[in-house]
Amino acid sequence: MNSPLKVAVLGCGSVGSQVVRLLGEQADDLAARVGAPVELVGVAVRRLDSPREVEVPAGLLTTDAAALVARDDVDVVIEVIGGIEPARSLILSALEHGASVVTANKALLAEDGATLFEAAEKAGRDLYYEAAVAGAIPILRPLRESLAGDKVTRVLGIVNGTTNFILDKMDTSGAGFGDALEEAQALGYAEADPTADVEGFDAAAKAAILASLAFHSRVTANDVHREGITEVSAGDVRSAREMDSVVKLLAIAELRTDDNGEEAVSVRVHPAMIPRSHPLASVREAYNAVFVESEAAGQLMFYGPGAGGSPTASAVLGDLVTVARNHRQGTRGVGESAYADRAVLPMGETRTRYHVAIDVDDKAGVLAAVALAFAEHGVSIQTVRQEGRGDDAQLVVVSHEATDAALAATVDHLRDMDIVREVTSVMRVEGTEE
Amino acid sequence: MNSPLKVAVLGCGSVGSQVVRLLGEQADDLAARVGAPVELVGVAVRRLDSPREVEVPAGLLTTDAAALVARDDVDVVIEVIGGIEPARSLILSALEHGASVVTANKALLAEDGATLFEAAEKAGRDLYYEAAVAGAIPILRPLRESLAGDKVTRVLGIVNGTTNFILDKMDTSGAGFGDALEEAQALGYAEADPTADVEGFDAAAKAAILASLAFHSRVTANDVHREGITEVSAGDVRSAREMDSVVKLLAIAELRTDDNGEEAVSVRVHPAMIPRSHPLASVREAYNAVFVESEAAGQLMFYGPGAGGSPTASAVLGDLVTVARNHRQGTRGVGESAYADRAVLPMGETRTRYHVAIDVDDKAGVLAAVALAFAEHGVSIQTVRQEGRGDDAQLVVVSHEATDAALAATVDHLRDMDIVREVTSVMRVEGTEE
Repeated sequence: MNSPLKVAVLGCGSVGSQVVRLLGEQADDLAARVGAPVELVGVAVRRLDSPREVEVPAGLLTTDAAALVARDDVDVVIEVIGGIEPARSLILSALEHGASVVTANKALLAEDGATLFEAAEKAGRDLYYEAAVAGAIPILRPLRESLAGDKVTRVLGIVNGTTNFILDKMDTSGAGFGDALEEAQALGYAEADPTADVEGFDAAAKAAILASLAFHSRVTANDVHREGITEVSAGDVRSAREMDSVVKLLAIAELRTDDNGEEAVSVRVHPAMIPRSHPLASVREAYNAVFVESEAAGQLMFYGPGAGGSPTASAVLGDLVTVARNHRQGTRGVGESAYADRAVLPMGETRTRYHVAIDVDDKAGVLAAVALAFAEHGVSIQTVRQEGRGDDAQLVVVSHEATDAALAATVDHLRDMDIVREVTSVMRVEGTEE
Repeated sequence: MNSPLKVAVLGCGSVGSQVVRLLGEQADDLAARVGAPVELVGVAVRRLDSPREVEVPAGLLTTDAAALVARDDVDVVIEVIGGIEPARSLILSALEHGASVVTANKALLAEDGATLFEAAEKAGRDLYYEAAVAGAIPILRPLRESLAGDKVTRVLGIVNGTTNFILDKMDTSGAGFGDALEEAQALGYAEADPTADVEGFDAAAKAAILASLAFHSRVTANDVHREGITEVSAGDVRSAREMDSVVKLLAIAELRTDDNGEEAVSVRVHPAMIPRSHPLASVREAYNAVFVESEAAGQLMFYGPGAGGSPTASAVLGDLVTVARNHRQGTRGVGESAYADRAVLPMGETRTRYHVAIDVDDKAGVLAAVALAFAEHGVSIQTVRQEGRGDDAQLVVVSHEATDAALAATVDHLRDMDIVREVTSVMRVEGTEE
């Protein structure tokens, strides 16, 4: 048998503990697949006496992560601490000391992936991170390798389980955001402080990672236009139902043409209405799914559990096997691919579609006045539905594609009109053809 | 720039012509992703003057495939001829002459993959074949690499578009098999001789490939229990509807325990009822999808177009980029993994569930007699539904899991009973928990 491949794990929380468990339980299979035994040589934790889900062999626990990653005999470092620091410094140190790295750290990759990729390149080591997006669902490897001979044009993802659970609950029960959030918290799908999920920060980090891979460019979390779901009302969800649609928080990365005819990347996270017939519409509860469109392959979808210790650990160990095999053979897998170096299109210039519901005075000429407001901003209307309701009426307008800036200006304009009592719902529409 | 990587293509039909087209159109991107220009040096065809979908540069066409694969300067051979011979000899010759190989040839891999894998191993070259199963859907790479740290327990696939189109049509329109087949033929979804599709041969080859990868064992097409859809009646489909289920032709590969407590592979292709709530139930028309269950990741699904020149070419070129990169670096990707060497469980010993619809005399004691017949063969009944219809009655029985042999014997027994007028529908039930 070949000499063992030595692995250090940073962090022993919900993911780390499952990684440690599987390293033990799957040892024989991992050895066969790597071509050498995989030996756990250290687990870095914050406190030695914390309760944890797995029993770590005595002597392997340490609070000195910096010393662990600097060991000369460590071949692969698995980073599942999360957050920017000390994760970044530890990964950089691991690479400098000759280890390859597997990480699940979406926040770090989306904020400062370039630093990590350059360090891996310089060290001649692998940096793999399948677990950073959509948990157990193999999506990064398919984008990076399976679709390497194709041209990806769009990625639409439900990549945050918490918000999908909340929106699904609102759709099925008619609940408002607040009640659905409370239920999600009670069931453990949302954290006590749900900001990172419900404000879209988590999805935005994943959108940046997906956009970078899909379009061979560097896209960071700061490039992502981000809107959360806290403003989504029961009325919005009802409006969607009336259009045979459903509201989802989507991470969107698209190839678009800018004003100069150059291909640019539009990358954004926001709630949107999608038709119930769209494959993403049937993604229920806390599941994740990523829908990919490419020129030759057409439409693909990848579906599965987007979070959880055990599913995320599956993705980590898949990367570990690849990285370990490469490490043994002295080779590297695919590194960063940013050659296309495409610009990010500002949100205002991105062409989208709006669904707008408006309470208006029920009198003659209202529809004409509203249509004129759209026209003044160069926004073409696809459909309009008018419903009288006693004194007032409701207009529901769905636009054709226009720049987001023109659509936003149209909505501002509507809000200023005397005949408009209230703009009750504004939401983008995705997943339909023009 | 690095010196070009030289590629030969065998076959210029619907897939080959799209490969040639994309090699031209995506040349810049392919060069950037491989790290060297990709140069097409020859296209082997049966006849030089056949009409084809793509213009092949003058001088590249040849009818001498054997000479093309034996050229010393060819780095990668793409085989999209299909069939056993001459494809096998050409692939073996290519490997012997130092080329790596990308193929879409499911029939050959399922019949004699071992010979090819061993030749690739001996030559130190890659043999990649993502396009052989489910067209553009990345499924082999996820099974081979992304899930390499996990234990796959079951693969359920809709891997034949023709049969899915026919069954979907029968479900939505109530048509019988013959009419649905005619429509599929008229629309180009089925061939004039539909045997390979409707009798399950195509799906069985793919099931063998999926089972080999999922369970790290050698499984051939001969190991696959195969039943096609020609016997599926409008009544079966109606019966499924009444159970809120749908009939699909499934390729199934499962890890099961044999009588000695050893893990063995059950691999089979047959029509089955699955609940409409199952993710595979919503796979419509000629689309494909593969549902994977594993211990740590849980349930994953991969969905997309399962055939067609351009989608299949996308999968071929994804492999080409990986193989080309490895070839340049003098390394290899993951070779065959058959270390687990699991036995294939005979169909008779495989535990399945049956849905049986029986026309019986409408008199007292019938249900008891039928229940006794199930009990005599050790088959436990999960549900039974009885419907009187004038003189006779219909019983619909769904069993718990039992060996397929016991279930088949039960159905034979029922057919021999005096009170049984006809066994009108027998179908396996999948995608539900016991």
